[in-house]
Amino acid sequence: MNNDIILKLNADDLIMQALKEDMPNEDITTNAIIKEPVMGEVKLICKQSGIIAGLGIFERVFTLLDENSVFKCNIKDGDKVEYGQVLGSVTADIKVLLSGERTALNFLQRMSGIATYTREMVCLLENTGIKLVDTRKTTPGMRIFEKYAVTVGGGYNHRFNLSDGILLKDNHISAAGGIAKAVQMAKNYASFVRKIEVEVENLDMVKEAVNARADIIMLDNMTPEMMKEAVKLIGGRAETECSGNVTKESIELLRDVGIDYISSGALTHSSPILDLSLKELHRI
Amino acid sequence: MNNDIILKLNADDLIMQALKEDMPNEDITTNAIIKEPVMGEVKLICKQSGIIAGLGIFERVFTLLDENSVFKCNIKDGDKVEYGQVLGSVTADIKVLLSGERTALNFLQRMSGIATYTREMVCLLENTGIKLVDTRKTTPGMRIFEKYAVTVGGGYNHRFNLSDGILLKDNHISAAGGIAKAVQMAKNYASFVRKIEVEVENLDMVKEAVNARADIIMLDNMTPEMMKEAVKLIGGRAETECSGNVTKESIELLRDVGIDYISSGALTHSSPILDLSLKELHRI
Amino acid sequence: MNNDIILKLNADDLIMQALKEDMPNEDITTNAIIKEPVMGEVKLICKQSGIIAGLGIFERVFTLLDENSVFKCNIKDGDKVEYGQVLGSVTADIKVLLSGERTALNFLQRMSGIATYTREMVCLLENTGIKLVDTRKTTPGMRIFEKYAVTVGGGYNHRFNLSDGILLKDNHISAAGGIAKAVQMAKNYASFVRKIEVEVENLDMVKEAVNARADIIMLDNMTPEMMKEAVKLIGGRAETECSGNVTKESIELLRDVGIDYISSGALTHSSPILDLSLKELHRI
Amino acid sequence: MNNDIILKLNADDLIMQALKEDMPNEDITTNAIIKEPVMGEVKLICKQSGIIAGLGIFERVFTLLDENSVFKCNIKDGDKVEYGQVLGSVTADIKVLLSGERTALNFLQRMSGIATYTREMVCLLENTGIKLVDTRKTTPGMRIFEKYAVTVGGGYNHRFNLSDGILLKDNHISAAGGIAKAVQMAKNYASFVRKIEVEVENLDMVKEAVNARADIIMLDNMTPEMMKEAVKLIGGRAETECSGNVTKESIELLRDVGIDYISSGALTHSSPILDLSLKELHRI
Amino acid sequence: MNNDIILKLNADDLIMQALKEDMPNEDITTNAIIKEPVMGEVKLICKQSGIIAGLGIFERVFTLLDENSVFKCNIKDGDKVEYGQVLGSVTADIKVLLSGERTALNFLQRMSGIATYTREMVCLLENTGIKLVDTRKTTPGMRIFEKYAVTVGGGYNHRFNLSDGILLKDNHISAAGGIAKAVQMAKNYASFVRKIEVEVENLDMVKEAVNARADIIMLDNMTPEMMKEAVKLIGGRAETECSGNVTKESIELLRDVGIDYISSGALTHSSPILDLSLKELHRI
Amino acid sequence: MNNDIILKLNADDLIMQALKEDMPNEDITTNAIIKEPVMGEVKLICKQSGIIAGLGIFERVFTLLDENSVFKCNIKDGDKVEYGQVLGSVTADIKVLLSGERTALNFLQRMSGIATYTREMVCLLENTGIKLVDTRKTTPGMRIFEKYAVTVGGGYNHRFNLSDGILLKDNHISAAGGIAKAVQMAKNYASFVRKIEVEVENLDMVKEAVNARADIIMLDNMTPEMMKEAVKLIGGRAETECSGNVTKESIELLRDVGIDYISSGALTHSSPILDLSLKELHRI
Repeated sequence: MNNDIILKLNADDLIMQALKEDMPNEDITTNAIIKEPVMGEVKLICKQSGIIAGLGIFERVFTLLDENSVFKCNIKDGDKVEYGQVLGSVTADIKVLLSGERTALNFLQRMSGIATYTREMVCLLENTGIKLVDTRKTTPGMRIFEKYAVTVGGGYNHRFNLSDGILLKDNHISAAGGIAKAVQMAKNYASFVRKIEVEVENLDMVKEAVNARADIIMLDNMTPEMMKEAVKLIGGRAETECSGNVTKESIELLRDVGIDYISSGALTHSSPILDLSLKELHRI
Repeated sequence: MNNDIILKLNADDLIMQALKEDMPNEDITTNAIIKEPVMGEVKLICKQSGIIAGLGIFERVFTLLDENSVFKCNIKDGDKVEYGQVLGSVTADIKVLLSGERTALNFLQRMSGIATYTREMVCLLENTGIKLVDTRKTTPGMRIFEKYAVTVGGGYNHRFNLSDGILLKDNHISAAGGIAKAVQMAKNYASFVRKIEVEVENLDMVKEAVNARADIIMLDNMTPEMMKEAVKLIGGRAETECSGNVTKESIELLRDVGIDYISSGALTHSSPILDLSLKELHRI
Repeated sequence: MNNDIILKLNADDLIMQALKEDMPNEDITTNAIIKEPVMGEVKLICKQSGIIAGLGIFERVFTLLDENSVFKCNIKDGDKVEYGQVLGSVTADIKVLLSGERTALNFLQRMSGIATYTREMVCLLENTGIKLVDTRKTTPGMRIFEKYAVTVGGGYNHRFNLSDGILLKDNHISAAGGIAKAVQMAKNYASFVRKIEVEVENLDMVKEAVNARADIIMLDNMTPEMMKEAVKLIGGRAETECSGNVTKESIELLRDVGIDYISSGALTHSSPILDLSLKELHRI
Repeated sequence: MNNDIILKLNADDLIMQALKEDMPNEDITTNAIIKEPVMGEVKLICKQSGIIAGLGIFERVFTLLDENSVFKCNIKDGDKVEYGQVLGSVTADIKVLLSGERTALNFLQRMSGIATYTREMVCLLENTGIKLVDTRKTTPGMRIFEKYAVTVGGGYNHRFNLSDGILLKDNHISAAGGIAKAVQMAKNYASFVRKIEVEVENLDMVKEAVNARADIIMLDNMTPEMMKEAVKLIGGRAETECSGNVTKESIELLRDVGIDYISSGALTHSSPILDLSLKELHRI
Repeated sequence: MNNDIILKLNADDLIMQALKEDMPNEDITTNAIIKEPVMGEVKLICKQSGIIAGLGIFERVFTLLDENSVFKCNIKDGDKVEYGQVLGSVTADIKVLLSGERTALNFLQRMSGIATYTREMVCLLENTGIKLVDTRKTTPGMRIFEKYAVTVGGGYNHRFNLSDGILLKDNHISAAGGIAKAVQMAKNYASFVRKIEVEVENLDMVKEAVNARADIIMLDNMTPEMMKEAVKLIGGRAETECSGNVTKESIELLRDVGIDYISSGALTHSSPILDLSLKELHRI
Repeated sequence: MNNDIILKLNADDLIMQALKEDMPNEDITTNAIIKEPVMGEVKLICKQSGIIAGLGIFERVFTLLDENSVFKCNIKDGDKVEYGQVLGSVTADIKVLLSGERTALNFLQRMSGIATYTREMVCLLENTGIKLVDTRKTTPGMRIFEKYAVTVGGGYNHRFNLSDGILLKDNHISAAGGIAKAVQMAKNYASFVRKIEVEVENLDMVKEAVNARADIIMLDNMTPEMMKEAVKLIGGRAETECSGNVTKESIELLRDVGIDYISSGALTHSSPILDLSLKELHRI
């Protein structure tokens, strides 16, 4: 997201959509008051401690409104920020600062909230070697921003969408007539560059999945004990993922079951925002 | 949102965008397994008690994929739903059920989460006559859904965007040279169908705003005591709104200060989702 | 419209659409003849006296085609221009001047036509304190330009669209079961930042509207005499608007009825263009 | 325009854009009042005599909002309609009738205004064999509708845009180094299916254009006498078009100069609308 | 592509774009002649033997123009078709048949050409177990159709785009400082559901790639002999792909080198179309 | 295509679409490896002799990703290029070079392939005065690029689409009731700036077309002998076009039949690409 190509191809349309959502015609308040162009500066203030994510998107909101906007800051995505800290400043025409403020903060606050929540969960897994991964439970239209925020917080991404990863769930398996057949059908159909992941619910299914040479086995809603057994059964022949309502509260129980990945929808669907604001606007 | 015109003009593009975000090419897992059209049914299950919101959007996800999809349910937006309750069922081609599931739930869970949180806050204001209103602190691209969810929860909407409401904040006021001038400039510039709202931070500003004949006065970050005095000063000559980091925790202090409206960004930026899922998919 | 944010968010898409409408593939005539880039200048000439509006849009047509285009002029939107007057000049690659000419003039001529017609009507209301306002009777896809042109001519804007203003007409009132109920339903449903306007056709309805605490009362198709009585009845408890086929011919009868606003659809749907042209193209 | 393919490929996007322009979020007034679906009917009334054009677009506005809308009428595009005449009726959900009314009328009134004005000018050319043609002086984004309206009024279309017709004007000619060279360059560059039209201002240029084998010669801003001479000079070796601020007032002077076509920008840029309205909405 | 979800989400926009490319305003020839709706039927005739692909897209062109169009055929994608064979018939309004013909055939001919060429190459690999795969060398905007056509012909898909597969080429490797580092960086950055593919040019690189635990090793522009040695070195520890200007002429040399996959850009960038036409249009 | 206006209005959207098709989220391989901006240079190498076409589009791919990209080359569209020749170099951020490479080459290779094939066919018509023209048998979404490539190769364009040229085929003629009626209906309906072309299959139809004063007569699938007779019959009273599966193999037979134009769909639907590549990427 600090990458111009991604901004141009994948983010700009969504940022423009957000700006138009907030200004279908104009910012009437600002346009009523400010009649002449005048340069101003405003500070980005942290009102809650956490992990910052989305500085590039925050900046882009202003540069899309005015290519001469300047965002200066001494921090970068992933840094820890503290209550009261001045994170940086934006310099631009005052109209741009006033009209773009809300949209810029809406992105930055949400992305930072996700990074903050992710970092907290990642810390709970410290020294386990387990990687925390996200899900497709993202806000519609925001996936690119939310999945990026997860990585900023120290998490990892699962598949991005239904087109770029295979995950055989119970309904697929029963429709195919068993795990072996499902895996075979997936290998026949999908590009060979994709790994095959199978969701299993009990140890019999684990065995089937191993035999079917699944690349990844997702242990769904199992108890920690059952997971341990599953991991033993798999014996390194597939990567293992644990899934199912994992939250900050429940994650510690999973530290020593021996799995490779824990996925959590809460990272993107239930983290509160990180409170940030723009203050001390003044002419320069 | 249970209104075909709104769906067609304002929601469909965003729903299609969400579906394309999740299927830029196809659902490879489902397409690998399910080769022939076959009708199926799946149940919508409530996994957490709360207020449901967004049933029309949930349904629309499926009808946009297959116009013959049928969503049957005995509840309506705003109803209280309980853990374990079967909320309804969707009947459609099984591919549609599998491919649309995540997007449909992503909308419904988020909207219901907002409605649930809103309802809780509204209950804390019961018997006060105070109306709880939202803000522009919404997720980019989701405002139409989130503001609707607030109303389902019993809250009210503030202005929808920068084009359809006037709110003179400190920067506008100082740029204009005072509240009186700012209000006058706003009346000259904006359509006469708009009310003029002024944000004030102390009692002097309250007086100025009343004298300037502001329609609404927003008391920003004042203590409950100061707000009470402000309300007395205003004496019914303007509507009054209280703003500033109002959450479930802090709202009770505001019950008896005499204001008309309380606005809370948390409604849309920090409510967790309501957990819902699609289960028991079967052929029919 | 002389505001970069409005141009970028709200006008550029429409200007690009107009350019593509005129050049779905290319300007074959110009491309057949002009093989090499060569800078040129052309003059903007006024061929009919009136009020100019849309200079920013005119300029934008050329800068969207070539960011190095320069439009120099000594006038600004709202100025009176005279037959034969040289209004300014555009400097750009000659291809840009030839290919953009028609689209630029189509905008400027139409906007200036509206401003001119509006100014004429505004003059007929001089010294009355009555404000002339527009309607939603605009050309599809052109509302943002046409409503701006009305303000340039000295008029004011009514609501921008069906989403940002409430106007209860006869059908709404009868569906609600009377004015009082309709106003109450509107207050319950709409954001509290919106004023409630009610359209009335006789004095009984006027009384009802006042009692229902409508913010604005629209006197529709009343005779001047009836309007005077209505205004007396209202006695300042609501703003008053007069509506109904108001044209340059009929407006004088309304000068002394005591209303606050007169709305006229003719401003945007029936004003002829102001004749302007680009002449004396030459290399520089 | 009464053609489903044109509607789907070329009109629907523009109609949807117009509807969204008028309802960026919703029709708050209607949605505040009408809570349940209820079928209604409304009459399309003619309030001014003229030529009707755009019935298919008028209907489409409603069917895009509700595919079960029914528009019944006994007239067709091009028919003469009289003050007070009931032109037809629309049956649909009452919300659709209320929310779509303005957009549907904005299209129909403008298109009918153009057809009416065109018909009047065509009548002034009766029995001359001269065809009246339009220009590219159309409202941005409305060309497809306005050019159609001209044909409904009895006029003919000139080229649709800069990509599908060649018209060598003074600047092209001087850049090419004379008419002969310009025509040759155009023939080399453009598809052989295009005719070459040359704009001339005096008799010498007429001769040059004939010698260069132009297909069409446009006599620009010539006096009727000069045009007569030009026509004689051309002697049937090219088609002839007369251009230059032709209005209802000036067109009669051109009846007997012997030209084939008269083009008039006023048809599309300065015709007032035809007044129409929807009345007598009632439940059915 | 015979899948309604893919059509709606991924193909319809591209088909509509193609139709608008061919009819920016209308089909003037057809509209000049056919004034009334009249049902017709036309036959789809095969003018060259090959493999048919794209019947669903062919049909969709007509159903997007007229939802009541009916395409009947007794063949399916992947079938061999012969010169002179009647493949099916389309029934629709004659305007739809005439206006949609070229676009429908442009898709079907191209897709069938690719399927035909692919099938020929697949046959040259018969009984080898080697899978033929495509590349990203597709026609801009046509990838979804072209990659599907490859599978219809019996080929397989490589990664779909730069976002859903990892392929470390020489430039990536040298920038990273060697294969081991590059693979490690890719594993750290990308989702764990992706396989890591490394492109190698000599046997030393092969060893490095194996040691780095690459999932797939692409042998680029090696001689058959070198490839055999590489395969031996790899010894089943990675999948193997051969790449580099593979055509019908050169593919036989690769039959017994022991690789798993052969990729060929020619499948999509250089296959000629399969000649098909619509004939015998008649009223029904 | 070396024309900024065409790029901005007609090409940029298609180029961006192609880039997004290849990078719906990001270039994961490149982003995994290259962490910091670093300038690089890469050479454009010709791997097959032919005619180059599309240099402006090739360059635009990179400038759309990074406006500071620089493409230097000493050749221009239409030049003959030889195997092994270094055509130029691109300088940009290395990420831009790696991520844009495939899309840039996909355009350039296809356009150059068409130009090369066209040039070969044009050479077969040398000294005949016959012009080779293209058809509407283009790749969906690529017409603007493919028709341009034909002209670069020395061919000419037929009509661009169904909206900007009239071609009366057998179905139109029979629906109209004969050629004379069809031509008359076309003249009544279409703009007078369009020529009328009629497709004929035998000498009787040729005579009818001449008598109907068709501007162009297309001789469809006639033997060379029949064409010679047709040309004699026409005697210069219409332009003549020969059509029907003309390829490099069959075109020589047509050299002396006396026709003005030969159209060939193969130019755009069946030419193989010209092999080009980007090599020797290095930091600078």
